[in-house]
Amino acid sequence: MKVPVVREVLKANDQVAAENRERFERAAVRVLNLMASPGAGKTSLLLATLDRLPAGIPVGVIEGDVAGSIDADMVAERGVPVVQINTGGNCHLDAPMIRAALAHLDLEALDLLFIENVGNLICPANYRLGQDLDVVVGSVPEGHDKPYKYPGIFTGADVVVLNKEDLADVFGFDHTEYERGIRMLNPDVPIFWVSCRTGEGLAAWTGWLVERLAPAGHVVAGS
Amino acid sequence: MKVPVVREVLKANDQVAAENRERFERAAVRVLNLMASPGAGKTSLLLATLDRLPAGIPVGVIEGDVAGSIDADMVAERGVPVVQINTGGNCHLDAPMIRAALAHLDLEALDLLFIENVGNLICPANYRLGQDLDVVVGSVPEGHDKPYKYPGIFTGADVVVLNKEDLADVFGFDHTEYERGIRMLNPDVPIFWVSCRTGEGLAAWTGWLVERLAPAGHVVAGS
Repeated sequence: MKVPVVREVLKANDQVAAENRERFERAAVRVLNLMASPGAGKTSLLLATLDRLPAGIPVGVIEGDVAGSIDADMVAERGVPVVQINTGGNCHLDAPMIRAALAHLDLEALDLLFIENVGNLICPANYRLGQDLDVVVGSVPEGHDKPYKYPGIFTGADVVVLNKEDLADVFGFDHTEYERGIRMLNPDVPIFWVSCRTGEGLAAWTGWLVERLAPAGHVVAGS
Repeated sequence: MKVPVVREVLKANDQVAAENRERFERAAVRVLNLMASPGAGKTSLLLATLDRLPAGIPVGVIEGDVAGSIDADMVAERGVPVVQINTGGNCHLDAPMIRAALAHLDLEALDLLFIENVGNLICPANYRLGQDLDVVVGSVPEGHDKPYKYPGIFTGADVVVLNKEDLADVFGFDHTEYERGIRMLNPDVPIFWVSCRTGEGLAAWTGWLVERLAPAGHVVAGS
């Protein structure tokens, strides 16, 4: 008797991701997957983006963390519907976790869904969730060598947002070297240089995002 | 026919870790496992520690990275024997990788071995390598909420070194909150507040390390 073995864990995940994607499309929700190192500023960027989005776009959030609900609490304070996923020991979100979270969100009422992944520059890039856009959030204090050390996540990024830009001088951050590392992997990816603390660059980022989401005709028009 | 299945991947890893440990003990080498987020300053702390260790301690280094050898090159420039492990997509080092690296090091000639793990606050904590000490390197720009979000790695730490301390004011870093989060998980773990940029706190850290390694009688005495 041949014992069936599920060898391709990622393919099994991709099937659920495709089902999530179908649900998102049916509900006309655009989905962003925010990925970054711990402390790069995923939540800061999320909150700053929520504050700057044009009025009338109904937004939801799924927060992924190993433990706790510190970030989700901050989102909830703004009256935005949010679901917390605690992964336990898991270093990334996967498609079944997102499916479970969707049971707690009224998808039909949303136009835009942010998923904040677990803080990790490696594995989150390998697990599809059903998202439209992969957003990689870098940060100045991490150093400009990150694209060379963590190529996978930069290769698949649809957009890179480099945060804590106001401290570039303090850290001797080399923008040319950072951008060169990214361009080697992903020649045409848009890069935004922002500071969630000073607000620098956030209007450009939010403007790009709204424009990027517009062609589907349901976000800017408010469904 | 019953098909044998290796379900307990971590236990399989632990067996190899125990073998590594035996080799380290036979060679009288003390082994440190440096773990941190990407860009927290593992390599900076490693280089600063190498510069401050008392003369006559033969040191080796194993560098773990998803890709590249940027850090290993910096270590090699100082004439310290170093082996680079490239994990490919893997987000942590494991015991078999260390075993493979040991083939390239003269363990008998060393008293101290630093292992720099892959930049990740989650999975590295779950894979034993055969080390004596788990060193968690935090950094101010990541924020003081990290112990609450990544409890596993702080729970198992033998020592925590918080880097980029010179920028605590800039980032509004709350030392009390950070320490409280750690103490909840690991009441007696030593915490060092350092800046690899200014040198602040490094003498205390190195002093503690040398003292901590001394009881085995082979490090300070230089075998």
